[in-house]
Amino acid sequence: MKRITIYDVAKEADVSLATVSRVINGSEVVREDTRIKVQEAIEKLGYKPNAIAQGLALQKTTTIALIVPEASFFYTGQIINGLIDVAKIYKYNIVLHTTTEGITEMNDIIETIIKSRVDGVVIFNDKLCKDELNTLTRYQVPIVVIGNRMSDETIGSVYVDYAKLIYEFAAQYLEKGITDIALIEDRKNPAMLKQLNDGLQHAMEDKGLTFDNFVEIPKEYRSSYLYLKEYFKTHKHQLVITYRDSQAMAVLNSAKENGLMIPDDMEVVCILDSKYNAMARPQITGFKIPDYDLGAVAMRVMTKMLKEDDEVIDKEIELSYIYTPRQSTK
Amino acid sequence: MKRITIYDVAKEADVSLATVSRVINGSEVVREDTRIKVQEAIEKLGYKPNAIAQGLALQKTTTIALIVPEASFFYTGQIINGLIDVAKIYKYNIVLHTTTEGITEMNDIIETIIKSRVDGVVIFNDKLCKDELNTLTRYQVPIVVIGNRMSDETIGSVYVDYAKLIYEFAAQYLEKGITDIALIEDRKNPAMLKQLNDGLQHAMEDKGLTFDNFVEIPKEYRSSYLYLKEYFKTHKHQLVITYRDSQAMAVLNSAKENGLMIPDDMEVVCILDSKYNAMARPQITGFKIPDYDLGAVAMRVMTKMLKEDDEVIDKEIELSYIYTPRQSTK
Repeated sequence: MKRITIYDVAKEADVSLATVSRVINGSEVVREDTRIKVQEAIEKLGYKPNAIAQGLALQKTTTIALIVPEASFFYTGQIINGLIDVAKIYKYNIVLHTTTEGITEMNDIIETIIKSRVDGVVIFNDKLCKDELNTLTRYQVPIVVIGNRMSDETIGSVYVDYAKLIYEFAAQYLEKGITDIALIEDRKNPAMLKQLNDGLQHAMEDKGLTFDNFVEIPKEYRSSYLYLKEYFKTHKHQLVITYRDSQAMAVLNSAKENGLMIPDDMEVVCILDSKYNAMARPQITGFKIPDYDLGAVAMRVMTKMLKEDDEVIDKEIELSYIYTPRQSTK
Repeated sequence: MKRITIYDVAKEADVSLATVSRVINGSEVVREDTRIKVQEAIEKLGYKPNAIAQGLALQKTTTIALIVPEASFFYTGQIINGLIDVAKIYKYNIVLHTTTEGITEMNDIIETIIKSRVDGVVIFNDKLCKDELNTLTRYQVPIVVIGNRMSDETIGSVYVDYAKLIYEFAAQYLEKGITDIALIEDRKNPAMLKQLNDGLQHAMEDKGLTFDNFVEIPKEYRSSYLYLKEYFKTHKHQLVITYRDSQAMAVLNSAKENGLMIPDDMEVVCILDSKYNAMARPQITGFKIPDYDLGAVAMRVMTKMLKEDDEVIDKEIELSYIYTPRQSTK
């Protein structure tokens, strides 16, 4: 497949490659009549300057690597949309990398990223360990982490404080004397689970209580539903907290089938709100997390880190959430 | 932020830039002792060859542009996973581009793509018009389209035949004498709607009937639910077909609240199956579409198109679906 190259343009305009390159890169040393001749050749042939070659010539690439876990686009989709919208404004390209659960590919990915000399890396991955980040910081590539709070010279982060979220929510219930609070969770996301656990523990301790109502369920909806169908034959809580909508629906369906009325017998709240929470019956109370903003702000922080001027930038940015009460709570 | 460059390596090894470049690109004209000296400098400094410069030197980039509509990662997520997994095997980078509904950005995106000289373009976008593809084919960039059936010298496609799917499904109902079949749909995806309409029409015509039960609903769940709550006060069908799970849930909730029993009074089927169909009560019948395979096969077709040898390749690949009966049909 023959494409129009810079060579074709040079031949057509009867000038050197260097001259074409200078015209493309806006150099001032090119004579006006030569510049016009080259422009005419470019238009005639329909030549599109190669952004990669252009970037090299200008000592500047415009590529950000985005690393997200595979198979979770349902949760990362809006983050990616926000990130790309801001990237478009600054004319950055986003190269997408995914990590597979269970396989430690992070080193391969980092290797690829370093080799491709990206300007920066945005990572959304709760399982990321500090060692892996260190590999990147060693090469002085700026990094923005979405989801976890951390920062140093070359690392920024944008996050929602889930420990605080659940602490504040549980504190209101404890204040009303509702103390039988259960956290029903699988262990798919240990970092998130730790934040939820810490927040609940903290809220209970403030009331002189201890939190020991963590109910571990299987990872898939079908088996967690069957597990809970057994569980609710002999258990009941005043308030059940889950992380994802599918976990909340497993609670809803299994509790109802055991004759428990939601919210009269048991209240249910889901941390990570989704459009499906409003479609369930009863509709499930949740928290709107600003996914789109997480992505957009992360990209904005990245552009600031890349500017390399003396502006002092805030590299740890906490975003807020919106409590969305529906029918599954009183 | 200082990074190790090829200049540092040349200085350390006391050779020219060209020599370092030759070593990196595996040229045979470098003397063995020089090669070793350069390798040692590379290792000592921790230099990672720039894949972009390397690609240029080898006259080969390894980048595929992927264009997906914004805000629909829920439906494209598995497609992207499949695509990236195959891209990893062939060591291609995926640059992600999104298109915004309502804004004709396609030309800008195509401009960016052509400028960055990607090896190929994979597009998942039902609203894509042939003119836009023509811009790309003019530059001889190989394209694989996911979702629509089309092909020519530089275009391949991987798709599921939804017209056939709905034709075959409706034909079974018509065979049993069930003729009051309604398609309840918004106009978010006109290309898909046309396929569904055509398939239903075809099935009805084969029985000497005409299909005129298209019910247009608003695009958002909340307003479509309210619309249908009114609609089912005065309407009822033997079989209702929707495209997305959220539309099926709007039907389920609004019909139930009007006293219609699903499936006894009315059967409901959702074309695009999702995990939420199994969480609804009653569980919603659907069709498993091989999303992951759509992405993986599209990338495989791309690698074949890029090979440029004489192998004749099948550029129109139809993938199958699995009917998944649940509680919302008899």
